[in-house]
Parts: sequence; structure tokens; C-alpha cells
Amino acid sequence: MAGRGEFDLIADLFAPLTSSTPAALGLKDDAAVFSVPEGFDLVTTVDAMVEDVHFFPADAANLVARKLLRVNLSDLAAMGAKPIGYLLTLVRPSTVGEDWLQRFAHGLAADQRTFNIGLLGGDTVSTAGPLVLSLTALGQVAAGKSLLRSGANPGDTIYVSGTIGDAGLGLALVQDPEGQGFDNVSRDDRNALVARLQCPEPRLELGQALAGVATAAVDISDGLVADLAHIASASDVGMKLVLSDVPVSDAAARIVGTDENSRLKLIAGGEDYELAFTAPESAASRIRKISKDLELSITPIGTVTAEKIIEVRGQNGDSLPVTSSGWTHF
Amino acid sequence: MAGRGEFDLIADLFAPLTSSTPAALGLKDDAAVFSVPEGFDLVTTVDAMVEDVHFFPADAANLVARKLLRVNLSDLAAMGAKPIGYLLTLVRPSTVGEDWLQRFAHGLAADQRTFNIGLLGGDTVSTAGPLVLSLTALGQVAAGKSLLRSGANPGDTIYVSGTIGDAGLGLALVQDPEGQGFDNVSRDDRNALVARLQCPEPRLELGQALAGVATAAVDISDGLVADLAHIASASDVGMKLVLSDVPVSDAAARIVGTDENSRLKLIAGGEDYELAFTAPESAASRIRKISKDLELSITPIGTVTAEKIIEVRGQNGDSLPVTSSGWTHF
Repeated sequence: MAGRGEFDLIADLFAPLTSSTPAALGLKDDAAVFSVPEGFDLVTTVDAMVEDVHFFPADAANLVARKLLRVNLSDLAAMGAKPIGYLLTLVRPSTVGEDWLQRFAHGLAADQRTFNIGLLGGDTVSTAGPLVLSLTALGQVAAGKSLLRSGANPGDTIYVSGTIGDAGLGLALVQDPEGQGFDNVSRDDRNALVARLQCPEPRLELGQALAGVATAAVDISDGLVADLAHIASASDVGMKLVLSDVPVSDAAARIVGTDENSRLKLIAGGEDYELAFTAPESAASRIRKISKDLELSITPIGTVTAEKIIEVRGQNGDSLPVTSSGWTHF
Repeated sequence: MAGRGEFDLIADLFAPLTSSTPAALGLKDDAAVFSVPEGFDLVTTVDAMVEDVHFFPADAANLVARKLLRVNLSDLAAMGAKPIGYLLTLVRPSTVGEDWLQRFAHGLAADQRTFNIGLLGGDTVSTAGPLVLSLTALGQVAAGKSLLRSGANPGDTIYVSGTIGDAGLGLALVQDPEGQGFDNVSRDDRNALVARLQCPEPRLELGQALAGVATAAVDISDGLVADLAHIASASDVGMKLVLSDVPVSDAAARIVGTDENSRLKLIAGGEDYELAFTAPESAASRIRKISKDLELSITPIGTVTAEKIIEVRGQNGDSLPVTSSGWTHF
């Protein structure tokens, strides 16, 4: 394809990203070649981001790069996999110049160091439309030990890592820059919540620690209930969640308060990229140890049920209406 | 990402494409999981196609799908790899409806059968711009046996499979539908040349047979000389080609004739997706046997030289000016 030739044009920017991945052959060959160690399975996933849909021209290019990488690493985390590297497709309008690409490459380089991975290959093509970024991430997991969505059993406890709803609230703050409805949000809280949106933390260490411990896992991209529904569907089970048990950050709690409807809307927000998973009661102490070792909160929020419905329970035990749209306003 | 949710919308169309790849987990998980057999390396490549750049809205969707798949399989072929499966990113404007997607999926399904591969995963996102398709192909090759661009040695013979220039001529015919300059082209010749453009034949069996035989290989996407230059550069060698030895189809010969300038322009056309490779004299009989076994012509067209220039020699031994733009008109 013409893409190979065009990729040469920005080889100055992208070839250095392969310095830690000899498999990429310096982007000078037709494809990358590498070995998966004996006893490991290969895990692979792809996620794309489109200008004006998933990010905006004014967004910092290095953060766009890091989010693109991190949402894919989050998928690997949800499978219990350790990342190896990635392939990148850059569909570039002429308005995206070398400056933007340089900042984008810097963002990738920074996260490559953070996650100890490298670029394996790519294609760059031109477009008359918006900038499109597609990234295929590759990882490895001990053979047969990958976390699937399909293993949850009735009686299992449902857990989530970290706090839920921050990224959705961050999005509301970004979309409402004049602070309508958010007048009293402190600069620190605003920054913390927007950072959760713009630079999520893939829970790679947690995912790897949960391989062989959790019965099912998913990363929270669409929203807590929406993503747990994927486990319920794949495992042929139901779920009972306790709203007040869902962990919320101090920053989010200060904005949203304790009202049940507000909390329901808060936890419907997506893009937190925490892991939600299920595990039998017998794994509880092991999970507490993982939490302590990783210095990452892991909170039980409900129970897997045989009855195939998903319920969120309020303080007085009532079943609350599940909200599918995230936080927007008070 | 929201993509996962959106992918569900067309799960009806794409989930059946995973029926032969249990690794894809029916597209119901965060990622695909599979094992690479012991003793094999993994090979991976990505190529994207953009509406109005690489294909047009009027093009048959099933052929767009097959070309997308085949150009990636051609990259695997050039590495000597056997394909395993692929991941697909579909960046879809609202104008691309279920009809188009259905024909697109049918094209993929047809070629999955042809090449004995399956869909491993994907992401579908929406765009206000043109349709963008990005495909990551995965393959395997015996450990350490992949064909690289970097192994050519002075004295090696340069070979190409099939015939060169057909796809570029097909493009000229498509871009000149009224036949200006192509008045006398028969319908059969026109169809044959356009087919080479729209549905290239990845030389997978040849690539696999050449692993351990060829010293360097590349697939012809940019043009014969442009792609051989990649081998020359990676191998730190030069090349001497004999123009009259470059194999040309009967259809192309009928249109272009034997004039040297016309032949030079013909072979500068890209997208033939034949393999060009180098091999020592000692491999000549083995290459003839591979050609016979695969019923695929393989033609010696020149010699690798120590002097790092690329020369195309004419009938009287003169060095001809290398053309970088392909065939357009007589």
C-alpha cells in the first residue's frame, strides 16, 4: 500500500519508538516478527479514536496518544495479560502537521517507558476527513490463565478497583468549562477528575495478579453496570449491586453528594478503566492481599446471582432504576 | 471505549466471522486469546484503506473487504508467514448502512474460507468523515525463518513472481473509463487488468516455500523498483535489472507494446502484490521446483550488486532512467 511509503515520511518520528522492540525491525520490513515465550498465550485487542468523537483538535496531542494506548492496555489488563507492544494506524488529514505528530510521538514514548512496551509496526495514510487513530495492542498471559467474562458463578462476590464515576464527571466538567452547575468545584478536584478522563490508569498489575483468582473480569469503559452486564451475559448469571458500596472518590463525593439519584448517575459514567471482577468467597483474603500489595483499593460491591437480572439496591433495600446515561448536570 | 458497545450493534454481521476462530471468544470479550505453536514466531502487520483515497463509494463492498484483507496477507506472504487471523477497525460514517456492511462482511467471509483464517477482534466507531478501514493481520512462521528485507548479498539473483504492471494498468483503465487512449482494449483484457487491481492474489504459498531459500523478499505494493529499493537499502547492496526480463502479462503487452519507455512506465505501477526476492545461484533449481509445484511463474530479472545503485538496463545495455510514477497514458 502507499501507506508504507508515507510511513517513511515520518519515520524520523516513529522509528525511535521501536528502539526497545527489535521485533519491529525498525519499521523497515513488511511486518514485525517476535516470539511468544513457551507456556504463554497471545492476547490481542484493537481500539480506535476519532477526532471530534473521542477527542478534540484542541486536546493535547501527547494526552491523546497516551489515552489511545491506555484504553487498549486496559483491555489487556482485563484479560490478565502483560503488554508486549502495539501497532498503530494513523489516518491523517493535511491539517495535522509535524508539530502535532511530534507531541503525539512524545506521548507514546513516555507511556512506552511507563509500561515497558514498544511500537511493533504501523501504517500512515492520508484522509480528507478527521484524524483517526487505531491501535492494536498485543500482550501475553500464562497459557489458559486469561481472565474471561464468562466464568462468573452464582454466589461469587463482585469487586471493583479504585473509584467509579470520576472520568464521567471529568467529561461533564470538560463539556461545561464555564462551570454552569459546577460553580463550587475546586481547581484541584476539577484537575483530578479531568485527569481521570484524559489519562486513565490501565490496571495491568491488578489484572495479572487476578489471573487464576478471579472467575470473570472486565474493564469499565462503557459504565459500571453496562460492563458488568457483559459478564452477566457471557456467564449466564445475574447480579445484585449495593449502590452505597460502590466506591466514589472524595472529589466526586464533594460534587455529587450522597443523593441516590445523583450517585446512580455518577456510577453510570464510563471510561474509568477500573477493573470489575468476580471471585468466590474463598478468594477474599487473597484479594485483600493483592489490594495491599498493589496499594490499590479493591471494594466488594455486590453478589453474582442465579436469577438473570441486574439489580442495583438502594439504602432501604429497594431496587433502583438502572441509569444508562452518565452524569451530565446536577 | 464506546466502540465495544457499537460493535454489538453489528455483532449479527461480524460475530459469524469468528466461527472458525474460537480465540476471538465470539467478540464477546475484551480481547482475543490464542496460542502460537511452539517453534513458531508471530508475525504481525497493519494496513489501512480510506474512502476516496484507496477506494471509492461506488466500489463493490465485498471487493473492498477482500482487498483490505489481501494487502495485509501479502505483507505476511513477504515475510514467509502463514496467516492466523485478523483484527478489524471500522470507522463508519452514518452514510454507510447495513447493506454496505453486509456485503463487506460477505467479502470477508469469502476470503476467510479461501485463506483459512478468521476474525479475531475489532472495533467499530462512528465518524463525520469518510469510511476508514484498518486491518491488523497475524501470522506465524517457523522460528527464525522469516523472510526479511535485509539478507540480500551481491551475486544473488533477483526474481519476481507472476507478472508486473497489471494492477497499475488496471488503475489507469478504471480512472479512464471512457477509454481515452485505451480505445482498442478488449473487454477481456480490461477485466483481467482491473481484477488484478481490485482483488490481488497474496503469494502466501510462495512466501512460505521461500522461507529458508530466499535471502530477502518484499511484496510489490509501491512499484517493482521502489520496493526492490527497500531490499537494497536494508541489505546495503545495489541491483542491476534487465527491463526486457521483467515479466509482463499478454494483456498488458497488447496495450503497452514493446517500446522501452512504455515498459518502464508499466513496471513502475504499484499494487501488483507479487513477491520480489533474492536468492543465491545455488538455490536456482529449488526455485524452479517451487515455481512448478505452485504453478506460478517465477522469473529472474537481474542481479544483486555490491555497488549501491539501482540500475535498469535496456536492450542495448544502456542504463535507463528509473521512472517512479506508474502508467497513466500512452
